Amino acid sequence: MARGVAGPEIERLIQLLARLPGLGPRSARRAALTLLKKREALLGPLAEAMRIASERVVVCASCGNVDTSDPCAVCTDASRDGSIIVVVEDVSDLWALERAGALHARYHVLGGVLSALDGVRPENLAIDRLVARAAEPGVREVIVALNATVDGQTTAHYVTEALAHLPVTVTRLAHGVPVGGELDYLDEGTLSAALKRRTAM
Amino acid sequence: MARGVAGPEIERLIQLLARLPGLGPRSARRAALTLLKKREALLGPLAEAMRIASERVVVCASCGNVDTSDPCAVCTDASRDGSIIVVVEDVSDLWALERAGALHARYHVLGGVLSALDGVRPENLAIDRLVARAAEPGVREVIVALNATVDGQTTAHYVTEALAHLPVTVTRLAHGVPVGGELDYLDEGTLSAALKRRTAM
Repeated sequence: MARGVAGPEIERLIQLLARLPGLGPRSARRAALTLLKKREALLGPLAEAMRIASERVVVCASCGNVDTSDPCAVCTDASRDGSIIVVVEDVSDLWALERAGALHARYHVLGGVLSALDGVRPENLAIDRLVARAAEPGVREVIVALNATVDGQTTAHYVTEALAHLPVTVTRLAHGVPVGGELDYLDEGTLSAALKRRTAM
Repeated sequence: MARGVAGPEIERLIQLLARLPGLGPRSARRAALTLLKKREALLGPLAEAMRIASERVVVCASCGNVDTSDPCAVCTDASRDGSIIVVVEDVSDLWALERAGALHARYHVLGGVLSALDGVRPENLAIDRLVARAAEPGVREVIVALNATVDGQTTAHYVTEALAHLPVTVTRLAHGVPVGGELDYLDEGTLSAALKRRTAM
């Protein structure tokens, strides 16, 4: 990869950028060049933002969210409904649900889903911590908001069983036609679910 | 974008990452999460690599290449053929030609192409510097390796005229069928050029 032309410093920058999701070797080179061209406006500020994030960002010991404080801003937000815990696979799912803004509750990040193939077992996920939180007084409902994939649903069932002895209601997200979605492009499973759970107009 | 959930430090990181080519708002969030999860292995080293690049990388005053020294490693490499200058639009094109490894000569980065639409005029490009370099003793050929786009070819003609008074041969890259390319997918212009410039088997 252009050895001897771009120096080792630039090569190292490209190699590290290529490890980001969404950037391959070619786009990492483009990204590195953009950074070098916009040194004042982008490279410097980004290096500084990374340094600050590296120093200050911590994982919330309670819910698994990333923030600059532990417990995180979600866990300490008194305006949130403490009776509901939304279980998600990853922090990105937490962010996605917050963008939807439909619920103002607490979260619990599992840190993955069970997977025989990838060797992810229950003890690798934050399931014990979820059970402990769900057992706290005041918690009434646990919404299992895991992906509708095979591994996601396997994990959802495991979580449901782990919570079965507690006096909490365990629910999951509704299946159906995505808002704005075209029926023609949907799979049979989604269409069946949407028909079965049809609601009055 | 998840305000109050991800703190301002993470938001800033996401916003800066989204300004890289190839990363949109969604993939910038994924990249930021990956960085925060791989703090030791990726976030720290990348921040450091950026800081080093920001401090050490300079633009070669002679050819426009980016390197940690000025003049750059290409300009100071005595093993290169100093009689040939390859004119490219951008440093990424220089890297691409070096990867091809077909020529061991010197380069000249114009820093763009002429574009009436984007307001890029000859004085915005490193054309005067190219003419000065091509006038140096020992230079015999200038290869205009600009993109085969309308703006690229307009610039190629402008560069050729600017060099016309000098005793150097000005050449351009061959048009033809890309190696591994399927004729069915090629445009008429490329096929015409490939036919016109056919060579003996």
